[in-house]
Amino acid sequence: MVKAMRVIPLGTSSGKPTLRRNVSALAVAREGDWLLFDCGEGTQTQIIRAGLNPSRLAAIFITHLHGDHFNGLAGLLSTMGMDRRERQLTLIAPIGIREYLDTLARLKILFVNYPLQVREIDKDELPPNALTQVYETAEYVVSSCPLDHRIFALGYRLDEKPKPGRFNVERARELGVPVGPLFSRLQSGKEVQLDDGSIVHPAEVLGAERPGKSVTYCLDTRPCAASKTLARDADLLIHEATYTEEFFEEAQHYGHSTAMQAATIAREAQAKRLLLTHFSTRYPDVTPLLEEAQAIFSETRTAQDLIEVNV
Amino acid sequence: MVKAMRVIPLGTSSGKPTLRRNVSALAVAREGDWLLFDCGEGTQTQIIRAGLNPSRLAAIFITHLHGDHFNGLAGLLSTMGMDRRERQLTLIAPIGIREYLDTLARLKILFVNYPLQVREIDKDELPPNALTQVYETAEYVVSSCPLDHRIFALGYRLDEKPKPGRFNVERARELGVPVGPLFSRLQSGKEVQLDDGSIVHPAEVLGAERPGKSVTYCLDTRPCAASKTLARDADLLIHEATYTEEFFEEAQHYGHSTAMQAATIAREAQAKRLLLTHFSTRYPDVTPLLEEAQAIFSETRTAQDLIEVNV
Repeated sequence: MVKAMRVIPLGTSSGKPTLRRNVSALAVAREGDWLLFDCGEGTQTQIIRAGLNPSRLAAIFITHLHGDHFNGLAGLLSTMGMDRRERQLTLIAPIGIREYLDTLARLKILFVNYPLQVREIDKDELPPNALTQVYETAEYVVSSCPLDHRIFALGYRLDEKPKPGRFNVERARELGVPVGPLFSRLQSGKEVQLDDGSIVHPAEVLGAERPGKSVTYCLDTRPCAASKTLARDADLLIHEATYTEEFFEEAQHYGHSTAMQAATIAREAQAKRLLLTHFSTRYPDVTPLLEEAQAIFSETRTAQDLIEVNV
Repeated sequence: MVKAMRVIPLGTSSGKPTLRRNVSALAVAREGDWLLFDCGEGTQTQIIRAGLNPSRLAAIFITHLHGDHFNGLAGLLSTMGMDRRERQLTLIAPIGIREYLDTLARLKILFVNYPLQVREIDKDELPPNALTQVYETAEYVVSSCPLDHRIFALGYRLDEKPKPGRFNVERARELGVPVGPLFSRLQSGKEVQLDDGSIVHPAEVLGAERPGKSVTYCLDTRPCAASKTLARDADLLIHEATYTEEFFEEAQHYGHSTAMQAATIAREAQAKRLLLTHFSTRYPDVTPLLEEAQAIFSETRTAQDLIEVNV
């Protein structure tokens, strides 16, 4: 069975934490490992609360260098050092991250004794309004595209690679394939030779390839063409909605989106579902944001810290 | 009535946070304002939990630049900026703090639009084993002295100035002082002239001056002469106790103290009470640390996040 990806918001408040919402961070957990998008202050504690294992964290993606999106990085990196992490960690972030980490290292603030691969993305490095792959594993790729915020900010999109079709056990038996290692070989898409010399091709026992799922992470940003490109046909679009339309001008001025604007992006990009996050602390109750977005795009939810969404 | 100082531990774990103990930070609240000692990651959230008002925070004292003692600084400083703080804030910290803040400012990570007075203390600036005043208000002074940790670390001591003696209302009336502003004037130590031309001196209506209270903050450190100097006759000594004696060698190696060592400092310095903090995460139950210390110094308590201690 192909397991769902789990999207776990670790912080859903913009600017500063409240007692109910920490600052920006979001985990995407798959079988085996997980990814972290943004790392606001206190994220390492939210990771404990979420029951995520830091040793299985494969990569961190930072959208931009505003403190509420990455002030928790130094603590998380150091804690993994104290916990004797050995596995490589990849960190992808906008220009400036190296200067930041170098300063921390020089001042001995950072305790990192495992391989940390830093990919610093410069302002003009990624083409506008197009997906550029920045991270790849055997099972998925992560792409990025610059957004439209007050400072250089990156949106991200995770695309699972197509998964092999379902394995037809009955058919394999009919063809004389013995239960055991040859089954696995066929399942992984390789042909096998039987004792009688005949060849069984995977296409004979596998159903049609199944498309992978996709998750898009767009914060912080004004509504823009890049958001739409990142969100195109996504199974889940996670988009900031700092304000309601009432504060349209503040949103524009500070480089943010209203809930209506986020919903419009979701609709125009034909995303399947929308998860709003990054709420201004002026909304202790986020119902107005939810209702405003649902009027445009019905498949909308508001993120809550530590409440999982399956994809 | 002279109000007690309130000592509010905001984080009592060493190195990394747990769900019950955040990393190092401690508030000392007096009437009107409060001081923060260390500012580990997540301190701004603990400040909300403690019900402390950040706009009344007068000064921050950082012991040393290990992340678990100051990774929360950038977030707290920026949040006060977003909350439109206007009042000056004083920040006292070891050498390196300027380079750190300058990097954050250059990368636009920090949002500080109020007067921030930074006092950076260099390694050879303070004489060893002596108190040097680093902060003063009308009501108290804070002194510092270098401790003995892996990196340059500072201990701090707050001494309230002596408070005026109790005002004898009966005696003032007998002397013909009318109830009202002249009472306040006498209470503040100034003489007054009555309508009949006679002078009343404060000494005639005030009891003996009352000594102020003192609180000492010693972390992180091995046991050392400086701790004893800082703790001499203190009403409350807050001292790190990262380990039990069983881990004496680790304590020595990493520049920390055992509970027994902390208690010995308290006893030899003739402190009145001892509050242990900065516990290794290997102790989910800190009773062994408490018992070890109480065997040496009975007036010992273990700090808990958000549990106040009056001085």
